[in-house]
Amino acid sequence: MLEPAHLELSGERLRVVYHLDGLDDTEARALARHICVEQTVEFPADLIPADDDISLHIIGQIEHFAESEGGHVATISYAAECTAYQLPQLMNVVFGNISLLPGIRVESLDLPASVLAAFPGPRFGVEGLRRLLNAHHRPILATALKPMGTPLHVLAEMTYDFAAAGIDLIKDDHGLSSQPFANFERRVELCTAALARANADHGTHAVYLPSLNVGADRTFQAAAMARDAGAKGALLLPGLYGYDTMRAVAADDALGLVVMSHPSMLGAFTSPPRHGMSHALVLGTLARLAGADVSVFPNHSGRFSFAPQQCAAIAHALGEPLGRLAPAFPAPAGGMTLQRIPEMVEFYGNDVVMLIGGELHRGDRGGQARAMRRAADRGQR
Amino acid sequence: MLEPAHLELSGERLRVVYHLDGLDDTEARALARHICVEQTVEFPADLIPADDDISLHIIGQIEHFAESEGGHVATISYAAECTAYQLPQLMNVVFGNISLLPGIRVESLDLPASVLAAFPGPRFGVEGLRRLLNAHHRPILATALKPMGTPLHVLAEMTYDFAAAGIDLIKDDHGLSSQPFANFERRVELCTAALARANADHGTHAVYLPSLNVGADRTFQAAAMARDAGAKGALLLPGLYGYDTMRAVAADDALGLVVMSHPSMLGAFTSPPRHGMSHALVLGTLARLAGADVSVFPNHSGRFSFAPQQCAAIAHALGEPLGRLAPAFPAPAGGMTLQRIPEMVEFYGNDVVMLIGGELHRGDRGGQARAMRRAADRGQR
Repeated sequence: MLEPAHLELSGERLRVVYHLDGLDDTEARALARHICVEQTVEFPADLIPADDDISLHIIGQIEHFAESEGGHVATISYAAECTAYQLPQLMNVVFGNISLLPGIRVESLDLPASVLAAFPGPRFGVEGLRRLLNAHHRPILATALKPMGTPLHVLAEMTYDFAAAGIDLIKDDHGLSSQPFANFERRVELCTAALARANADHGTHAVYLPSLNVGADRTFQAAAMARDAGAKGALLLPGLYGYDTMRAVAADDALGLVVMSHPSMLGAFTSPPRHGMSHALVLGTLARLAGADVSVFPNHSGRFSFAPQQCAAIAHALGEPLGRLAPAFPAPAGGMTLQRIPEMVEFYGNDVVMLIGGELHRGDRGGQARAMRRAADRGQR
Repeated sequence: MLEPAHLELSGERLRVVYHLDGLDDTEARALARHICVEQTVEFPADLIPADDDISLHIIGQIEHFAESEGGHVATISYAAECTAYQLPQLMNVVFGNISLLPGIRVESLDLPASVLAAFPGPRFGVEGLRRLLNAHHRPILATALKPMGTPLHVLAEMTYDFAAAGIDLIKDDHGLSSQPFANFERRVELCTAALARANADHGTHAVYLPSLNVGADRTFQAAAMARDAGAKGALLLPGLYGYDTMRAVAADDALGLVVMSHPSMLGAFTSPPRHGMSHALVLGTLARLAGADVSVFPNHSGRFSFAPQQCAAIAHALGEPLGRLAPAFPAPAGGMTLQRIPEMVEFYGNDVVMLIGGELHRGDRGGQARAMRRAADRGQR
């Protein structure tokens, strides 16, 4: 038995809604109690004095428990202090160890003021990005430099053509890293220079976002290099580098970059229907906490398998009130075409980033990009 | 249509074995072809000249396709250059975008020499860690400082008691971050000092491994602080910080730390039976590529739900020939008890790290720890 611990705690609690799959009532209650211990002390509860602050406040508490579709829903609260007011430890408390158990899905978070206050969130957000792009009402347009293997001078020509045609955000394809055929520094030099020429020649305000996928120990160096070369944004891969790397880049005032979040590898959380974390949490709330101004995700009816209501929930999570955090743009993507623009504006509204990649190369890319811009201008509600 | 691209490629290929769940033969073949494109060019294949190097070498190639339990198995190869010889991009090519599709599980990787050569792997490995700990044949013993909320001077007393009793590796509980009640710097100062006293008083060679869970922009600073205070190892959380952060810490010669990998959040990959990546890949091969000397995972028949064959596959992946990479220790954990030591040695052999946490606090912790050491010495094969 330990000596009783006395902690100074604020009393603020983080609330997490878990869906527990396919257990009977008794088993599900036992699992909920297990989560309370596993996600905090990981310690035999009978060895902790019952009246000390660890038992009373650090071990999670079941706030609500009910039957739900195919199982049960449990709301469990944790002391705000357990999160260390940092994103990795917040995620650790919410789902770290219990990710290793089957049939648990995190549906949503309710963050107390003290935790929310630790996250500045999107630097630009919807309003700030619209100002930067001089695009005040219409849907924002984005494309990707691809395919992997394309010579860098060709990627730079694409950058010029897309910016000149009125595309707002031109990002590296997320598969561009620093391959022998796609050296990061050389690529950024060529594409930033092409973008600057296009903006000067055509009076546009396009932003180039290189992918900061060059190794965990080179992320900040790469971001600084890109900014020095004139890039005003960057593509981050939280599924490969952790959400907190994106948070740290977004929060860096010296960089001051527009941050676009790419969903690579995040399907590990969202794809299993009865495990992981919800689409809205992974691609909405967590991306926004981590400072994404734009969150890319697979649109419904594209190359991937997200349902319309999952896409709507992501967009909602990016825009709903969340402390003092600015709203971020949803960027539904994955095999989109020009023909879908009116329907996508109908579904998401004007506060959306239309991301069309490969299809802009069908025929003359400049002409296709101008047609995309016209479709967005017309589609504006 | 793009101009034909001409790339200088080595001809070396990375091979990935995918399990495709529950489709008929035609659908599964179509999905395999889709993976070849999605994981590389993400571009309409008809817009790439058929005889250029992107079509011929960059787009993935189906090497083998067959029916398998509940679906099909496809082996797909990619040009080694696509990986950029870096871990995040390797993972990006293997499973990045297709993680967002249902029913795909990565079973194993076959890495070409040029990719393997980019990864030094475990700095110590089994042999090096045995030398450091002066423990040449027996199972290695480990424990965690817990529960969260315990005053830091008590964690330091635990450190002393466990080291004095012959526990080799004393790690922070993975839930310790830098909470108000668990300040990282203060904790490391107290625990390294206690460890040094115990090693001096008792002639032991124990190593303390603080958890580098203090934010993505502070990882290297925290590692350097810990090393300067005398810590010879660190606990890394690849599920929260990305595997490449662990790789970069492990590869840092100025730090020279023993690296222990914790599985928090990695269940997102392993838990869904028909999605994600295999236990052996996530907790074995990838941990070792990322430089883990010790990979912690939930032992079968504990608080978690791994099957014996999954645990055996992890241990196998940590020890099998893999280029010039040293073997790493499996550390089966999660509710282990002293009574299980003989059975665990029988299952894993002597090259195992026995990690027992909470149960060492049942009664006198020094006595329990000495009993653990005796059980391991006796259990040695």
